[in-house]
Amino acid sequence: MRRIRIIVEYEGTNYVGWQQQPNGVSVQELLQNALFELTGERLCVHGSGRTDSGVHARAQVAHFDCEARMPADKFAIAMNTHLPADVRVLYSDEADESFHSRFTPKLKCYRYTVRLGAHADVFSRSTALHVHRPLSFEAMQCAACDLVGRHDFRAFMSAGVTMENTVRTVSRCGWVRDGQLLHLYIAADGFLYNMVRIAAGTLIEIGGGRLPVDTIKKAIESHDRADAGATAPAHGLMLYSVRYEGGFDTEEALNGVI
Amino acid sequence: MRRIRIIVEYEGTNYVGWQQQPNGVSVQELLQNALFELTGERLCVHGSGRTDSGVHARAQVAHFDCEARMPADKFAIAMNTHLPADVRVLYSDEADESFHSRFTPKLKCYRYTVRLGAHADVFSRSTALHVHRPLSFEAMQCAACDLVGRHDFRAFMSAGVTMENTVRTVSRCGWVRDGQLLHLYIAADGFLYNMVRIAAGTLIEIGGGRLPVDTIKKAIESHDRADAGATAPAHGLMLYSVRYEGGFDTEEALNGVI
Repeated sequence: MRRIRIIVEYEGTNYVGWQQQPNGVSVQELLQNALFELTGERLCVHGSGRTDSGVHARAQVAHFDCEARMPADKFAIAMNTHLPADVRVLYSDEADESFHSRFTPKLKCYRYTVRLGAHADVFSRSTALHVHRPLSFEAMQCAACDLVGRHDFRAFMSAGVTMENTVRTVSRCGWVRDGQLLHLYIAADGFLYNMVRIAAGTLIEIGGGRLPVDTIKKAIESHDRADAGATAPAHGLMLYSVRYEGGFDTEEALNGVI
Repeated sequence: MRRIRIIVEYEGTNYVGWQQQPNGVSVQELLQNALFELTGERLCVHGSGRTDSGVHARAQVAHFDCEARMPADKFAIAMNTHLPADVRVLYSDEADESFHSRFTPKLKCYRYTVRLGAHADVFSRSTALHVHRPLSFEAMQCAACDLVGRHDFRAFMSAGVTMENTVRTVSRCGWVRDGQLLHLYIAADGFLYNMVRIAAGTLIEIGGGRLPVDTIKKAIESHDRADAGATAPAHGLMLYSVRYEGGFDTEEALNGVI
């Protein structure tokens, strides 16, 4: 058996998310079906983590174990012939048995995108949240800094979810402006359920003047979900990059490929 | 009666093009239906020109005459409530009776987009032509210059089309690089049928080394369609901007709106 590692890009609009579900088509299922077509083997594809329905990925990392003798780097092209146009395998290689897309310690980066403007933009409608009111970039940038560090992020987890350890380390959090698009990049050693969408939603409310600029700081201190803002919609969110302990980094792997 | 002028943005993927057709849904028809819902009047919406099936518009200009008393600038928001998410009215104002979106002399700019990379990109799949082989940017840029000027562009018109006057003046033609995206901007006082797609197709073949760099120059001289390259696919093409004699300019009108 060999362990094949892949980087997958997808637009989440048409899917129930990464993980197989009874109520619709998942990205995981599409990849497993493509591998069955290719190898005749019923394989399980393990992702670096789930993404929710409507959430996109620029670089989701996954792996599977198989017996097929195809050169490892050919899996990407071969799998793509059995995948719809909104899911692409961008890269494939052979990984060490000790590598596990989910359990090997890693740094993940998500991006949340807002599109400003009087009218919703046609071309970014599936990948950006349209906000028609003006936002204070400075207030949002200032408040984003408060997320950086090792904190108990319980206030930024959907109510009703139980999780023992809610401490995470955010190593980077900041907005980048690109014309009418505002991108929030947030990197951490792990994320709680809906953490990025609650952080983005809170920052957008701060930018619009609906919440004070110290809201993030106070919610981190209080651990109370009610002190943070609303959960931003799924379609603005994208799993942007993943870097593993031991060296595998989607940015390096994709360099020259995409 | 008043003349209302609008700027329309659309992703052409799901439509048969701008103009009403028996075989599918057109953008013109959607706008006319939205106006009927809004005003109860059966109005004809005149565009600055047709776009083919699958071709997009960032700023199509159109006008219609109506009796509705709504303030002119409110038509945009009101029409959008009756339009699907891939068609947006970005701007509306009242135009002079002498203005005609199609017949008032104008300068139009189209953009053709290529996405480089080993694998087709998920997020640009509907708006860029994926090219996996390397392209010489320098060769394409150099050859693009040969399109500029007042020429008989008969070689850049689909075979079988009859048109008396095939002389047009191209005022700008050049490529702009944005990461893995290459955008060809081409502005002229008018275009022949498929002129931009044939020009783009020829330039891409030049960039890939399949046609010599003087192909454009020779095709302009020979007037022979066979001397130009293949017609590039529709989905990479976008009507980018329109500027009218007398001052109306989509870039100025949209400034601050999008």
